[in-house]
This record gives sequence, C-alpha cells and structure tokens, in this order.
Amino acid sequence: MVEPWQDTTLPAHVRAADLLARMTTEEKTAQLSSVWIGADTEGADVAPGQHTYAARSAALDALLPHGLGQLTRPFGTVPVDPSEGAARLAGLQRLIRSGNRFGLPAIAHDECLTGLTAWQATVFPTPLAWGATFDPELITEMARAIGTSMRAVGVHQGLAPVLDVVRDPRWGRTEECIGEDPYLVGTIGTAYVRGLETAGIVATLKHFAGYSASRAARNHAPASLGPRELADVILPPFEMALRDGGARSVMPAYNDIDGLPAHAHTRLLTGILRERWGFTGTVVSDYYGVSLLEEAHRVADGEQQAARLALAAGVDVELPAARCFSPADPLPEDLLDRAALRVLTQKCELGLLDPDWEPVADGEPVDLNPPHLRDLARKVAEESVVLLANDSGVLPLRDGLRIALLGPLADEQAAMLGCYTFPRHVGVHHPELPTGVEVPTLAEALRAELPGAVFTDDPAAADVCLAVVGDRSGLFGRGSSGEGCDAEDLQLPWNQGELLDEALGSGVPVVIVVLSGRPYALGRWADRAAAVVQAFFPGQEGGGAVAGVLSGRVDPSGRLPLGVPRTPGGQPAPYLAPPLGRHGFPSTVDPTPLYPFGYGLSYTTFAWDTPRCDALELPTDGETTLRLTVRNTGGRPGTEVVQLYLHDPVGTVARPEVRLVGYVRVTLDAGASAEVHATFPADLAAYTGADGHRVVEPGALELRVAASSEHVHHTVRLTLTGPVREVGHERRMRCELRVK
Amino acid sequence: MVEPWQDTTLPAHVRAADLLARMTTEEKTAQLSSVWIGADTEGADVAPGQHTYAARSAALDALLPHGLGQLTRPFGTVPVDPSEGAARLAGLQRLIRSGNRFGLPAIAHDECLTGLTAWQATVFPTPLAWGATFDPELITEMARAIGTSMRAVGVHQGLAPVLDVVRDPRWGRTEECIGEDPYLVGTIGTAYVRGLETAGIVATLKHFAGYSASRAARNHAPASLGPRELADVILPPFEMALRDGGARSVMPAYNDIDGLPAHAHTRLLTGILRERWGFTGTVVSDYYGVSLLEEAHRVADGEQQAARLALAAGVDVELPAARCFSPADPLPEDLLDRAALRVLTQKCELGLLDPDWEPVADGEPVDLNPPHLRDLARKVAEESVVLLANDSGVLPLRDGLRIALLGPLADEQAAMLGCYTFPRHVGVHHPELPTGVEVPTLAEALRAELPGAVFTDDPAAADVCLAVVGDRSGLFGRGSSGEGCDAEDLQLPWNQGELLDEALGSGVPVVIVVLSGRPYALGRWADRAAAVVQAFFPGQEGGGAVAGVLSGRVDPSGRLPLGVPRTPGGQPAPYLAPPLGRHGFPSTVDPTPLYPFGYGLSYTTFAWDTPRCDALELPTDGETTLRLTVRNTGGRPGTEVVQLYLHDPVGTVARPEVRLVGYVRVTLDAGASAEVHATFPADLAAYTGADGHRVVEPGALELRVAASSEHVHHTVRLTLTGPVREVGHERRMRCELRVK
Repeated sequence: MVEPWQDTTLPAHVRAADLLARMTTEEKTAQLSSVWIGADTEGADVAPGQHTYAARSAALDALLPHGLGQLTRPFGTVPVDPSEGAARLAGLQRLIRSGNRFGLPAIAHDECLTGLTAWQATVFPTPLAWGATFDPELITEMARAIGTSMRAVGVHQGLAPVLDVVRDPRWGRTEECIGEDPYLVGTIGTAYVRGLETAGIVATLKHFAGYSASRAARNHAPASLGPRELADVILPPFEMALRDGGARSVMPAYNDIDGLPAHAHTRLLTGILRERWGFTGTVVSDYYGVSLLEEAHRVADGEQQAARLALAAGVDVELPAARCFSPADPLPEDLLDRAALRVLTQKCELGLLDPDWEPVADGEPVDLNPPHLRDLARKVAEESVVLLANDSGVLPLRDGLRIALLGPLADEQAAMLGCYTFPRHVGVHHPELPTGVEVPTLAEALRAELPGAVFTDDPAAADVCLAVVGDRSGLFGRGSSGEGCDAEDLQLPWNQGELLDEALGSGVPVVIVVLSGRPYALGRWADRAAAVVQAFFPGQEGGGAVAGVLSGRVDPSGRLPLGVPRTPGGQPAPYLAPPLGRHGFPSTVDPTPLYPFGYGLSYTTFAWDTPRCDALELPTDGETTLRLTVRNTGGRPGTEVVQLYLHDPVGTVARPEVRLVGYVRVTLDAGASAEVHATFPADLAAYTGADGHRVVEPGALELRVAASSEHVHHTVRLTLTGPVREVGHERRMRCELRVK
Repeated sequence: MVEPWQDTTLPAHVRAADLLARMTTEEKTAQLSSVWIGADTEGADVAPGQHTYAARSAALDALLPHGLGQLTRPFGTVPVDPSEGAARLAGLQRLIRSGNRFGLPAIAHDECLTGLTAWQATVFPTPLAWGATFDPELITEMARAIGTSMRAVGVHQGLAPVLDVVRDPRWGRTEECIGEDPYLVGTIGTAYVRGLETAGIVATLKHFAGYSASRAARNHAPASLGPRELADVILPPFEMALRDGGARSVMPAYNDIDGLPAHAHTRLLTGILRERWGFTGTVVSDYYGVSLLEEAHRVADGEQQAARLALAAGVDVELPAARCFSPADPLPEDLLDRAALRVLTQKCELGLLDPDWEPVADGEPVDLNPPHLRDLARKVAEESVVLLANDSGVLPLRDGLRIALLGPLADEQAAMLGCYTFPRHVGVHHPELPTGVEVPTLAEALRAELPGAVFTDDPAAADVCLAVVGDRSGLFGRGSSGEGCDAEDLQLPWNQGELLDEALGSGVPVVIVVLSGRPYALGRWADRAAAVVQAFFPGQEGGGAVAGVLSGRVDPSGRLPLGVPRTPGGQPAPYLAPPLGRHGFPSTVDPTPLYPFGYGLSYTTFAWDTPRCDALELPTDGETTLRLTVRNTGGRPGTEVVQLYLHDPVGTVARPEVRLVGYVRVTLDAGASAEVHATFPADLAAYTGADGHRVVEPGALELRVAASSEHVHHTVRLTLTGPVREVGHERRMRCELRVK
C-alpha cells in the first residue's frame, strides 16, 4: 500500500504533513539537523570556529536511526575527484536512507558562489564581477549551468547568492556581494537565483539581513540600522529574489541589527519573510549561527535556549551540524512541527520522498569543467572588466610593444580567484594538490594575447608599463580580501601604492590594472596614469578576459558595481546618501568617489539622443515609456550601458539623491544605432515614509538617463498625479528596458 | 491696574497664558523669532551658511512693532569690549521693549561651551577635558561661575552643553563632546547644566539627537540608528540633564536619524521629550536648522512647509534669525499658541514679564576674566591632563635638564583652545585684535615652570625631548579639529607622525605630548616613547596645567573620556560594542584601543582592597552597597579614579560588554587610605530589550571595580532576583559613590 506521503499525485505539503504526523520527536529533530563529514580533519578552518564546534556536534551514527535533514559540503570540504565524490555522496545517501524507517535521504548542500566549490569545477568570476556586467541574462545562464553541474553530482542546495548590499567596502566579504545599489543587487541576484532554481537547485539567499552594514565593516560586528534603511536599502534584493527569482531558502546573517541577532529576529524571519512576503521555503542557519546566539551574542543562556530562540524566530535547520538542535533537549513540539514540515515539504518538492528516488547514478564520469561552462566563465569575465581611464589612448595595446609587467599580482593565480573558489577556500590547505582547473595568470594570458610583445620587468626598457595591483583572496586572515579579511581603510594592501609611485616615476606610460575583491583608493595616481583597468576576481578565464581588454580583442563593457574612492579613509562611502551625506560642506571631508557607481568606458564612443516620453504626467499607479536612441559614433563595435536613475526632489524623509531604477546593455557596431525602450512604473518611486509605510507619492520626479550615477546625459522631469498610494509585496519592482 | 500677566504672584504659565490670549498672530510669531545683529558683517561664517541666510532673514525693524523672542549672540558675533557690549545689549533691550505694546524684552542667547564666547572672557577647557576630570562637582562650579558672568552682562540663555556621545572621533565636533560613555556624558553634562541653571541661565542641551553618529563622522551626514541604540546610548545623557540638571531648553540636531531629520522628528521632540520625559521648556532650532529641512534634507517644499513641519514636530523658536517662521505665511494657530506659550512661560520665569524688569545696569565695568574664573579654568585644566605612559619614569621632569622642545604646537596658543572659544571662533576673523585673555603656550609655561631648564630644538643637545603634537581647532576647514573639520582617519594631522619618527630616531628619551580635540592613533610610537601625555584643548590655563604635570607640581589625575586607538583606520571604535563588535576574530581588524576608555596614570601608585558588598543578591528594584579601601602606596600625594563598570552576561538583545555605571575621584596623601562607598541601584542594569521596553531583569550581573574599562581590579558577582521590572523616566540613573 502506498501511504499518502509516498503518493506523488498529492501536493507536497499534504504529503509532508502526513509524513510529519508519523514521526517521533527524535525523527523531527533529525530533519532539522545536518552532519558535516570531514569538518574535523581539515588543515584549517573553512568556516569560523569550525574545529571548535566540530567536536561538539552530533555524529552521523547517532542521528542515522532517526534520519537526517541535511548533508554539509560533500564537495567543498576536502578535495575529491568529482566522479569519486558523486559516488561517495550516493553511497552516503544509501546509508542514510537505510538507517531510518521512512527511507528518507538528506538534502545535500554545498557552496556555489563562484561555481560549485569543488575540486576541478569551473571557477567563475566573483559576484562583484557579475554586478559589473550589468547583464542579468548572462548571469542566469551562468547560474543555470552551475546548477546543472551540481544536480549531476547529487547536490540539492547551493548556499548562494549573497544579496548583501555593499555599505562599506572595507568589509572582507565585499567581493562576495554584487554591488552597492539595491536595484543592481536585486536584479543580478534574482537572475542568479532564477538560473540556479530552473536547474532544480535550491538557492539560498544570504545573509538575511544587514551583515554588510556591520560596524566599521568588521566581520560579525553589530549593524546600526533603523527600520527605514533596512526596508529601503537592505531588504529589497531579498524580496526581489524571492518573488521574481523563486528562491526556496534563506540564511540569516551573523550580525545583530540594533541589538537583535538575525538568527533570533522574529520580525525579520517570520514577520517580514513569511507573513509579509509569503515565503514558504526553509530558513537554514549560517554555520554555527545558532551557537553564536549563546556564545557570541549572549542572548541565550546555554545551547538549549539558543535553539529555542532560533526556532521560535523562524530558523528551521541548524547548519553545518546539529549542536543546539538536539533531541536530548526536546524543543517545543509546535515549533518543531513548523520547521520539520517546511523541511519535509522541500524534500518532497525535490523528489526525496518519492518511493523511486535514487541518488544520482554513481560511477559515471563527471566533468565539472566542460567547455560550455568555461565559455560562460570567459564571457562573464569579459563583460565584467571595467575601463576607468584611458585619456592617453594608450589602450588598446598594439602587439609588438615592449611591456614592463610589474606588480605582485601580474603573474599570480590568486588575483583571479574569489575567497569562495575551491582553490582559495579549500585548496590552500592542500598545497600539494594541483589547482584542478587551468587558471592562467595575467602574465600568461598576455603572452598568448600579444605574441609579438616583449615583456620585461624594467620600465626603462619598455614602451608601456602595466602595473598589476590588488588582492589575494583568502579566509580569516589568509588574504587581503575575503571572509574575515577586513581592512582598516581602502589603501592598496602590502604597500602596492609604492610600486605605483615607482612605476609612475619612470616616465613610461603606466597602465594601472587592479585585480581585487574591493575597490581601492586610486586618487594618488589616477591623474598620472595613462589608463586604469579594474577587474574583480574574474575567475579562471579572467586572465584572458583582462588581456583581451588590454589588447582590444574585447571591448570593455563592464561598469562599476560600486564606487572607487579617491582617498583611503572616510568610509563608509556616500552612495545612496541624501544630500547631507554627499556634499563636502559643512564637512572638510569630501567623500565624492574618484569613479562613481555605474562608471566605465569603452574603446568606442556613443551619442545619446534626447529621450521621448509617452507621458510626462502619470498617476501614482501608472507607468510611462521612454524611448531613446543610442549611436555608436566611434570606429569600433562596442557596448554602452544605458542607466536610469531616480531623483525624487521632496519627500517625507531624507532619501538617496539618486538610485538606480533600470539599465540595459546596448551592443552596437561602429556607426550603428538602436532604440532603447524603457517602461517605468510609478511603483519604482515607492519609499518608506515618515510613518513607516511604503508609499508612492504624487509630485515631481526626475528620471536621469545616464552613463553612470554621476554622468547624466538627459533628465526627464515627470509628475506623479493622484493620491498617495501605499504599496506592498505586489508592487512592480523593475523597469523593463529593451533594445529595439 | 495690573493685568494678570503682570501679576508676579501668579504662576508663570498662568501669566503667560493670559498674555498669549491678548496677542495677535504677528505678535505670537515674533516671540518665536530671533534677530542676529551683525551676522552679515562678519569676515567669515561662524555658523554654516550664515551669510547666505543672513540676507534672507527678517530684520529687526520689521519685527520690532510685534516684539521679539530672542536676540542672537550679542557677544559672540564680533569682538566687543564686555562693558560696552553689556551697555549695547541693554540699549537694544530698551529699544525692543519700547517697540511692542506689552513692553516685552527678548531672551538674549549666546554660546558658552568653554565659557562665554566673548572677547576678554575666561577660556575654559573643552568638554573632552571636562570628561577627563571625572569630577562633576568641579564642572558644576565652573558652569556656575560661567553662568554668573553671563547674567552680569545681560545674557539669559547659553547654547551648551553638547551631550552627544562620541561614536566616531573622526567627527570634527568630538572636542565639543564629553566622551564616549553615556554615563560619563550624562553625569558631567548634568553637572554643567546644574551650574549654569543655578546661576539663572537657561542651559540648552544639544544636539538632540544622534548628531555624533553621522555616517563616516562627516558633519551633518545621516545617522543610521535603530530605536534601541538611540534609547540606550544616545538619549540617556539628555534625560539625565533634564531630570537631574533642570535644563530648560533643548536644541535639535542637524542630522536625520534613519531618514527623519531631528528638526521634523515628532517622536523625538514631542513623543519622547515632552510626553515621556515631561519637559516643559523650549526647543530652539539649531542655526538654520528649519531652513535645512527645505534646502538640505528636502523634506519640505518651501520655507513655509519647513516651518510647519518643525513647529508641528515640536520646534518652538527659529534660530538664529526668523526666515521660515514668518507672519507673512501664517502658521497654524494651535501650533503657534503651543510654541508661544512655552516661550512666554520661560520669559516669565526669567522675570522678563515683570513690570519692573530692567536690563542689567549698563555703564558699569565688567570683568569677564576675574581671578576666580581663571582659578577654575586652571583647576579644570590640571585635573584633565592624562598621563598615558611613563614606563621609563622620565616624568616628572626635574628642573635643570636640557629639553628639546619640538613640534608645531609647542609654542602655539591654538593648541589650547577649542573651536567654540572666542579666539578661535570669532577672533580668527580679526587678526589685528589681541587675544583678549592671556593664553600661555606650552613653551612659555614650561619656561616658567622649569626656570633652570635649557630649551633647545636640537635633540642631539638634549637630555630629553618633548614632542608636542595635535590640533589647531577651527571652524569649517580652518583647523584640524572643530565644527566642520572632520577627518578621514585618526592619523596625526600635517604629517606630525614624521616628527615623532624623527624625534624617536634621535636616541634621546621622547615624551609625546598630545594637545588635541580628538584622540589620534599612537600605536606606531607608543612602545618607543619614554612617556605619553594627552590633553584635550585645556583652555587659557592649559599651558600651565600641562607644564605642571610634566614638572610634577601637579599629579596627573585625568582619565581618558574616550579610547586612544592603536591605528588610524578602522573607525568607528568598539567602545560600548557587544562581544562581536570588539574581538578581532573573525575579522582581521583588531579594534582594541591602545589606551582604553577610563585609562590614566598617576605619579604615585595605589592598592585596591577587595570590596565588600552588603548583599550579593538584590531584588530587581533593590540596591546594594559596596565598600572598598584604596591606598596610596607610593611616595607622593595623588588621585585615583575608582570606576565601576557593569557587565551583564545574558540578555534579550546584544549589549555592550561593559559600560560605566559609577566613578569617584579619591585624592590621597602618600601612605593614606580612604574607603569608597558605592550604592548601586538595580535600576542601573536597565536596558531596552527585544520588545522595545526598558527593563531590569533578574539574573547574574558583574560589577567590575576598575581603574579603566579594561583594567579591572575586582569583580563583584551579583544576582538580581524577582520579576522582570519595566522602568521609565522615574528610574534611578546614578550610582552614588562617596569617599569616607
């Protein structure tokens, strides 16, 4: 007889409820638990406090008879051959199934921020590079390919994307973020989620919320945030990625907001996420996030109280291993049921409750770095390189030049790889291990790109000097960028500024190439440099992408996903600030960035015709369409990124001077033109007003049609008419831009 | 016939109401207005935007027939001989009285942060120096003397103290604040208010609220603050100074909090201030604060809307001059009445409604710098000097040494004077004018202090080197510290670090003397320095005070009112942070200060006996008394500052690891001892919990008996018993410490 929970014709939540009703307390608790095999055998922590906690967590053996909710990082813990790893995971799933009376497997989760964090898997560019592409479609394609490869090896859930809006780039995890504008983060993040989810992988939105606003950008430090800033800056990307991307999991942040740790934040995890946004998926703790309620935040007196607080607030699963969620300290049954039902529903959706579920066929050869993934990695990398200055016209470099190639990162793989890539995250603990994928350095890529060039390290013998500076990523102090690698200011690390001083003193034209995980202050050199190129850890194909831009094979089309500051101090930066947060006066500190959000050059030039607008007056629930012709007026093909910014002159609270509300890439042959259609819904003018409600108000608005947040080509003055309109989760959150 | 409003036997609010009922709209509006005579004739702004606004404000002539609420800065605008100034002010009051049908004079207000901002008036130390004294009684005495001198020249209201709790010392106005701990700010601030008010002067608490939390410490930038941090960190000093100090006026801050500008913040100015705290005095705008609602915050469309917003929120008087508050755009009558009644009530309390009121007798000689004020200035300065390091024992300096005196501030008056002193605030615009008071530089004071010493500027020829570094204060870019003079980091300005490098390279023992308006990072030099002395703009007697400490005539007894950082970056600093905001891991940035809050040395040594406690268990509404004997174990008289810190291990929100809850100075002869009695009420453990209520909770507490926030001599473990108790405005806010 087929029990209801096994009946694949019934809805997932009905099957899950039926199964739940049959479970003991131990079995329910086990579904909220994970096991991290190999966590204690690592050479060094890949998660904060890993070794301390590993010894104190429930072992697989103890949990097996009751089942198991999750398996932690089958590929991202120690290096394993992908085929062998898939076979091992399949074997483990068989063991788990045979251990519990319902034959339930576990959800296997792993990191996948820059591709699956697995040995020999394609290493994609870091999220700041996704942001720089301003190309959601490409990011969806990339994520779909990543998700498909994860499915192929038996992984169900990916702990990405990071939707934290950058608030202070001193934070080491800035490289894991998409940018400093909520709309860019929301649209690119949604694109990633959509790709992962359409491949059948559960995307996990993190870190919910406010992690990037930690005090002084110190990792885990408290976030001083009021409800309005939270609602209008921090939360929108999550809302977009849930509603428009279909993400099925959310991970709370390590930090507290105004004293309330996210893992115990009922209003956030239940009030906003579930009740306001209607989320029905799972909330999985960040690694040791439940334990930290007791041991760091000190809002719980013991692990049992920590578990109750987290569960009551809305955390469903304790990752990476069960410590606080323990059947020895039974949790309140109603809370246990609520969480277990969510987990079982998700397992049902994933097919894990089906009688005929089988682990992926093991023993079959797996290629986690096939050509189409490498192509995508290359394409994202190429679109992400930002040309910041080229007044001298020294770029593109013609072949045959004598090139002085300077700087610690010129011939360094690490300059390409974010902190969540396998080589930097896990590989560094296994120095004997090959990288697993080919990662040409910039020097190697340039030799291939410019076969006629002569390379030297002596500027005196060169026509042009490439000074390659930036970061090596790592975790917890093993890099200059990456999780736990925060900075006190935005000075180039390891005195690389002195290298630039020397290069610029040589008299040879200097191209500054920054390969980094965060922006660095370049004001001391920018005026004297012949050109400036910025790439954010562009992945295994990044060397070729940067070399391609330098040679002109690739037209630079990346735009800054966050501002590059002039000076190292004075953080946090003023993007999204209202007028009083931007201007110098009455402060001696002028926080104006050297290169603003959205900025980037091409090797060709563009003309932007005056836009025409359907209606300059529209009701507070209306929309208007704007048409704009963009022409390539230069001699080469190239890509312009048309950006729309909203400036709202008067409101009930102080608001950002400008924020992004739309963008589109326009690729044009030399001499060609295209018409961009932008449909702007009044909903995009919504903000949280003085009374705490999100409203669209009548009155004047400015749409700034711009090549960056500060380079405005045209200003369209609109008037919203009609009543003040309160808007909620149903509101339109995007401006559609199309190239005709 | 005597009208009720003239009847001095009736209560002030009855008289005020009677008068109000007789007034026209124009007359009421005039009572909410001020006139700033001479604002347009200044060489440069003494307030931001002064010249722009001066031309757009109502003129005295236009207001006279209706009366006038306030007169702005009769002494702090242009230099005037005090006797002549008093006579002019009296004449002006006679003109004002004769101009309106009720014969009402105006309230004359002026700045008085470091003494009355008037030419030839005593210049007291800056508030950071008050904080360093940990001596509320002395600050009360100082403020009473300041208030008495103000009364003598016809001033009624002083725009001080600044009760902003320092959150990021990069802020230029840090020097105007008392410190980074709310309890220290609250107790010292209350002491100042009590002194001013007992002299009959209306004290004005500013800036209400959150100004010091502006983003990146840029002046006027938004404050990202949640309600809990506001309640527990920012507001307590205001509450204490109103309730325990009797302040009769409050000035809103320039900034917004989470989008809501303080000048339009109804919850703050009415909900908290009036309804919760029962405040009945006046709220006076910061200079141009009402205009900024329109012109900077952009929450008002025009000056009329700005006026309505401010008035509705709870601003009563527009300073420094009427622009938005205008009878041409009549304000809602009920709001007008509410504000005018408050102003008239205050005028009544000040005697300005009395038929026999007369301006102060003019023509009489006035001395604003008499010996007893100078003595107080010297005493505050002496108690405020902080000895931070003296491992080498090089201090005190014996007479007869060869001393290399280095640094741009060694022979500089400006190193003694805060930005609100008359010489720095106004005098700088009149370079031909004598300073008005004697301000010996450190070099001059040292020559007097050590007549046998030989001074040189060559370390090679010296026994010891004094390297004097720090700030010159000024306004809006005219200094390295002061209003509008924010810093990007805490690096010593003008490359003074190089001077220290050179001095330390000389091989001669180096005493670093910092005379500044904020702490600077000293980690690069501290280990190599023979001694480190810190003073915060110590006023006209500051040279002698610092010299006295260096010579040993004065035992150093100042304690840091805020931490001195190790490195220049990484701001904001972690004092008051919960555990995750303090520790290095999991961040590479270690924010631990070089010298913590409360730290400071003496030339003698002290032993702290184990404290005895009346009761280690006390109810949540109880108290306990702690007794502790302190002995001077050294060979000289000296002063120890006994400090009590509260550590609360577990709560419903993340809270500061420690915060100050009590302190007392203990001055002892060599070999002498004294018993300190501290009465600790459980109320001091109150904090704003997860549900937003302020509660005292049962459970464990630690009282740390300490010589600084990080130098704990004894820990007393208490247990609070009984129910969770919600506490309000009536709660006890002080721990009484007495020396027996």
